[in-house]
Amino acid sequence: MALIVQKFGGSSVADAARMRNVAGIITETYKAGNDVVVAVSAQGDTTDDLIEKAREINPDASKREMDMLLAAGEQMSAALLAMAIEKLGFPVVSLLGWQAGVQTDSHYGMAKIKTVSSERLTAELAKRNIVIVAGFQGINKYEDVTTLGRGGSDTSAVALACALRADKCQIYTDVDGVYTADPRKVTGARKLDEITYDEMLELATLGAQVLHNRSVEMAKKYGIEIEVLTSLERKPGTIVKENAKMEKMLVRGVAKDTNVARISIVGLPDTPGVAFRLFDRLAQKKINIDIILQSVGRDGTKDITFTVAGEQADEAMAALADMGNANVVCDRDVAKVSIVGAGMETHPGVAAKMFEALYDKSINIQMIATSEIKVSVLIARGDADKAVQAVHDAFIK
Amino acid sequence: MALIVQKFGGSSVADAARMRNVAGIITETYKAGNDVVVAVSAQGDTTDDLIEKAREINPDASKREMDMLLAAGEQMSAALLAMAIEKLGFPVVSLLGWQAGVQTDSHYGMAKIKTVSSERLTAELAKRNIVIVAGFQGINKYEDVTTLGRGGSDTSAVALACALRADKCQIYTDVDGVYTADPRKVTGARKLDEITYDEMLELATLGAQVLHNRSVEMAKKYGIEIEVLTSLERKPGTIVKENAKMEKMLVRGVAKDTNVARISIVGLPDTPGVAFRLFDRLAQKKINIDIILQSVGRDGTKDITFTVAGEQADEAMAALADMGNANVVCDRDVAKVSIVGAGMETHPGVAAKMFEALYDKSINIQMIATSEIKVSVLIARGDADKAVQAVHDAFIK
Repeated sequence: MALIVQKFGGSSVADAARMRNVAGIITETYKAGNDVVVAVSAQGDTTDDLIEKAREINPDASKREMDMLLAAGEQMSAALLAMAIEKLGFPVVSLLGWQAGVQTDSHYGMAKIKTVSSERLTAELAKRNIVIVAGFQGINKYEDVTTLGRGGSDTSAVALACALRADKCQIYTDVDGVYTADPRKVTGARKLDEITYDEMLELATLGAQVLHNRSVEMAKKYGIEIEVLTSLERKPGTIVKENAKMEKMLVRGVAKDTNVARISIVGLPDTPGVAFRLFDRLAQKKINIDIILQSVGRDGTKDITFTVAGEQADEAMAALADMGNANVVCDRDVAKVSIVGAGMETHPGVAAKMFEALYDKSINIQMIATSEIKVSVLIARGDADKAVQAVHDAFIK
Repeated sequence: MALIVQKFGGSSVADAARMRNVAGIITETYKAGNDVVVAVSAQGDTTDDLIEKAREINPDASKREMDMLLAAGEQMSAALLAMAIEKLGFPVVSLLGWQAGVQTDSHYGMAKIKTVSSERLTAELAKRNIVIVAGFQGINKYEDVTTLGRGGSDTSAVALACALRADKCQIYTDVDGVYTADPRKVTGARKLDEITYDEMLELATLGAQVLHNRSVEMAKKYGIEIEVLTSLERKPGTIVKENAKMEKMLVRGVAKDTNVARISIVGLPDTPGVAFRLFDRLAQKKINIDIILQSVGRDGTKDITFTVAGEQADEAMAALADMGNANVVCDRDVAKVSIVGAGMETHPGVAAKMFEALYDKSINIQMIATSEIKVSVLIARGDADKAVQAVHDAFIK
């Protein structure tokens, strides 16, 4: 007998038929002799509808009241899912975040789980109840309702799994696993059987929106095995764990990120502290910098180029409005293409092979960034899909 | 400075415009220097919509899970109302039943408030916050969410008023007070300035659905003054209190109840214990009996006639299916018309005057029941509206 935590996203419980399907998955797991704890998201568009309702009344509503409002979405889906399980004749109880002991900090709208006090959960499991927990929510030290931000139900599930020392955490979504690239766009994209936490984190950061980053970080810290799989078919998904099998693949995934802009400052005086003052100014505006390139220009000047997330480009440009004689230029017509793989640490030729694949397709590389398990290049946005396919073809057979 | 508890029903907060209107009423009360605590119902049809959603998934859902589901309705309206008040620039906080300390028994779907632990409420008032409490809900000793049944937000408001020793409890509805009769149907119906708790209780029981009965009982017990008024206009309503002014009116209200059926058992053996066994059988089926009439029949038999609520008539008939030689007849074509007034205790001619008014209109009286402050008659349903008007004309000028 194992203890299994399952998470079902909004599309998995969008209507009564999907609810019944999910109730089927949960009760099959229970019938097989397992203890089952479930974290569930709000149904379909509920969260968006509630945000719209709030906006109509007060576009500047406090985050505390927004959390109070939005938490009702998961409350409703948890109760309805419990009813669907009752209908199948199994013992079940739904719990809100605070009832399940999910304690967070007070960062409303983006709260972090601090601890999960598992007394109630343990007591319900001891009664052989299936436990449905409203995902995405918790309470802070003031006993006020908080929410964990978009994708927070993944984090709820992993936090519950960690607190209960679960044997496995299954994240059910509308895709059937983690792929080497977006299968809708890249020919030959393959589903991975296994992937390491670090690879998953790099892929998540790079725009493969399968798992919420914080949930992967937490799973890594506590060594909880995650399985990403679909609720629409009964087949195995992708296992995320520390020592994932390598499958003789250097590169585990190719990701594309088009939410990026490149900003260049040309003709800065080449004196000490210039770069520091520049990036300090951006940091004060809470603008995250990604790739940075510095080059020596002509006549004792230098050029600095960096990338930011697309939605922060305007803010960054405003922060840099007054740069003396330097010329500030923003290019939004760019994309970042990355390869991720734990194996590349010990294989120095990986980056070269990627560049060669791009050169073969006459794709110009504007910037390069590397980490132990990742190589990213910035290219023209129009080349992005072609680049992903070319790189995928080069590494993944 | 006073402490005022206000309650707003579902139609008062049905949409964004109504929410803004209610936020206006609340903040005007606050601006006048008062502490304000508000109990709010779910918006418009939210509760019915949620019940329909549950029915689609499981028509026999447990009451515990129904309460978990329905409580989300008041959570959403409390948060939205708080946002509307934030928009007007006032300090406000919304609280769920459990956060407001509303503790109930475990009778899911129909829970009774046991106590209100007012620490959090008091702390929020000390910070000069307007406090919006989700009505209709509480928690039981297992820390599970409960609901108080239809109309429960009235009880929430009065319970909060009692716990906080409020100076006044204002119940905002879609009618502007308590009337001597239904003003849509009875010419000359007048709004009352004041009414006693007992009169209000009799009127509520008799079908004038202005205030939830339990809320009036609780207000009476703790001596909390209630005002019933409309949220759609700014004008005084009706005050419910112990020593209401008499206004020289013997009769405070004329009520009609058509949700009633008369059951007659003709030809019972006239032996001891017959009536006991009959009513014991009905009691075991939890069927409430209202007016009872027993008369001696022919040939050593007797007849018993009584009334039940319309929806319990079939059950009552089924329970009486096997009554030997006696003949059981059910008449649903009846109505109960009642006059209520604390003054009639000391005025013996009141009942006679009522009967005379009915006689003048040739309305036949089938049964009569009286209490200290009430006279009820059972008549043919087709005569009901005419009877109410005639009785109203006789007593209320």
